[in-house]
Amino acid sequence: MPKIYNFSAGPAILPADVLAMAQNELCDWHGSGMSVMEMSHRGSAFMSIAEKAENDLRQLMAIPDNYKVLFLQGGASSQFAMVPMNILAGNSTADYINTGAWSKKAIKEAKKYCSVNVAATSEAENFTTVPAQSEWTLNKDSAYVHFVSNETIGGVEFPFLPETGDVPLVADMSSTILSRPVDVAKYGIIYAGAQKNIGPAGLTVVIIRDDLIGSAPDNTPSMFNYKELSDNNSMLNTPPTFAWYLAGLVFDWLNTNGGLKAIADVNKRKSDKLYDAIDASGFYTSPVAVECRSWMNVPFTLANAELDKTFLTEAATAGLVSLKGHRSVGGMRASIYNAMPEAGIDALIQFMADFEKRNG
Amino acid sequence: MPKIYNFSAGPAILPADVLAMAQNELCDWHGSGMSVMEMSHRGSAFMSIAEKAENDLRQLMAIPDNYKVLFLQGGASSQFAMVPMNILAGNSTADYINTGAWSKKAIKEAKKYCSVNVAATSEAENFTTVPAQSEWTLNKDSAYVHFVSNETIGGVEFPFLPETGDVPLVADMSSTILSRPVDVAKYGIIYAGAQKNIGPAGLTVVIIRDDLIGSAPDNTPSMFNYKELSDNNSMLNTPPTFAWYLAGLVFDWLNTNGGLKAIADVNKRKSDKLYDAIDASGFYTSPVAVECRSWMNVPFTLANAELDKTFLTEAATAGLVSLKGHRSVGGMRASIYNAMPEAGIDALIQFMADFEKRNG
Repeated sequence: MPKIYNFSAGPAILPADVLAMAQNELCDWHGSGMSVMEMSHRGSAFMSIAEKAENDLRQLMAIPDNYKVLFLQGGASSQFAMVPMNILAGNSTADYINTGAWSKKAIKEAKKYCSVNVAATSEAENFTTVPAQSEWTLNKDSAYVHFVSNETIGGVEFPFLPETGDVPLVADMSSTILSRPVDVAKYGIIYAGAQKNIGPAGLTVVIIRDDLIGSAPDNTPSMFNYKELSDNNSMLNTPPTFAWYLAGLVFDWLNTNGGLKAIADVNKRKSDKLYDAIDASGFYTSPVAVECRSWMNVPFTLANAELDKTFLTEAATAGLVSLKGHRSVGGMRASIYNAMPEAGIDALIQFMADFEKRNG
Repeated sequence: MPKIYNFSAGPAILPADVLAMAQNELCDWHGSGMSVMEMSHRGSAFMSIAEKAENDLRQLMAIPDNYKVLFLQGGASSQFAMVPMNILAGNSTADYINTGAWSKKAIKEAKKYCSVNVAATSEAENFTTVPAQSEWTLNKDSAYVHFVSNETIGGVEFPFLPETGDVPLVADMSSTILSRPVDVAKYGIIYAGAQKNIGPAGLTVVIIRDDLIGSAPDNTPSMFNYKELSDNNSMLNTPPTFAWYLAGLVFDWLNTNGGLKAIADVNKRKSDKLYDAIDASGFYTSPVAVECRSWMNVPFTLANAELDKTFLTEAATAGLVSLKGHRSVGGMRASIYNAMPEAGIDALIQFMADFEKRNG
């Protein structure tokens, strides 16, 4: 295998140890004579895999007992609809904070089900920052407050935990979950597509306070009804078994390596190193306000955008792939999730310095 | 690896060649230096995988150009809601044929969105047969007619293609798709959860005539709207990339082995052999009407139900696993999908004869 570092925003790099284990047992899980993919989801073998994955995630995130953990399909985009469909509970309004592309998609979807109060937005700043809570205009009658903890495209991360009193806080945590400890008890719902820090695409994790379950209208599709999904332990129908298993391997890998506190130290060091290199350069620029810079997604631009293509081609030749920024913002983006080794950051910084020397 | 034959109803056995290939390239797909699981779904590598899978499926099933093929999440259970949500098109009624457990679930879900006319049911026969079309009472104003081609739990398969004139025919084909050629042009929608004959759980294939796309009400969740999914080539959000890839390997395996005509011959031979053994025995009984017996799911009972547990234990010891019938019908069920080698059928028949000799 050529040595490459994959900076894709998602689906994204997975821990090499996890992939090696998955490969090793792909055709025969623990001497069962079958692949995890071939197992009945209701059989004892897969049930043990599913339960261990949930327990490991509960341990990792210190999830309180009054929260359910659901392993679903459909991505965060399905949650954009499921959240209002399930927890409006007769209310007609919800608060949304708009910090970028994913916030906007969540808002657009929620408008099908309720009146959306955009309590704060950083659109005027081109989504390079997070509006300070002092500027928010929350609606006290709202059923919940929704925000995107980390905007994957913009590389903008909340530097503070929103304060919403008794109103449930709902977070799309797709691209920052498991990057550091969070106080789950402060949230009503945390949801995340798996394909960044959890595992392969096709799995969505929802962590939901149990009092928020059970208010969906009768005409809610069963597959979108938290109560039906929860009552059936995420097996209302056949779950995405292989993705659930892979996520379990990732949770185990994190626990074995010191848990979220340990990975947070690594993530801070990795991102600091990269932002420092960008800031120290006269050639690269980070568009994001310093205090809101994401630990996971690092967008940056070159002094001369005409060099973008050359940068990407030469980076790929050097084994640094998927660095192209999202088409909506341009430039570059290095997604450096948990599984990205520090050596990958070092290699990127080295390449960037060389490229600057040759082109700066 | 111990030699086992896995008769699970789904997730189910996969072709050994497919698993071996997936294992071989799990950590490095075609020299890319990354796993398929790690690839951006919008990158050229995964796009080539996705397109080849769709093209191979189109070739296998001879899908006409005016049909879209969608690679979705959520299983057939999501389609139970999506079909009425998308294609009622202002109509208030839909016809359903009730031939068992999955029909009932589809009906229950559809009732949230329309008036369901159960045009025929075999409930009085305990779902051991399919009502003859001459007994159906179709409603000419219905938006569509829905049936389940093969009831996985009951092992009951339609022995004829329903005739519905201009009213679109919608089929849940989860447990029989790819088992033989079908005339796609006779259907409005064919949908199937992948975890039987297609690939791993977490992928749903929908084959839909293009004129049925575009009538969903504005408040339909985007992830449940055929038009949005189709307009984005099943990449409205991140699709289940690894499952899509695995399905592609299965499609390729089928094409390489002679396509659906060839596998149909094998499937007929495999199921005939097993039903013949059951019928020839004085100890085993098939509850299903001869003409409706499934090629894929073969339920059978023992003369003495008190021996069920012994049968299952001894079968497992002999490497024949997941033979327990669904709790709703009891007895045994051998699911013998495309990937089950004929040797597995032979081994099961041999074991059944031995067991009968010792206990009959």
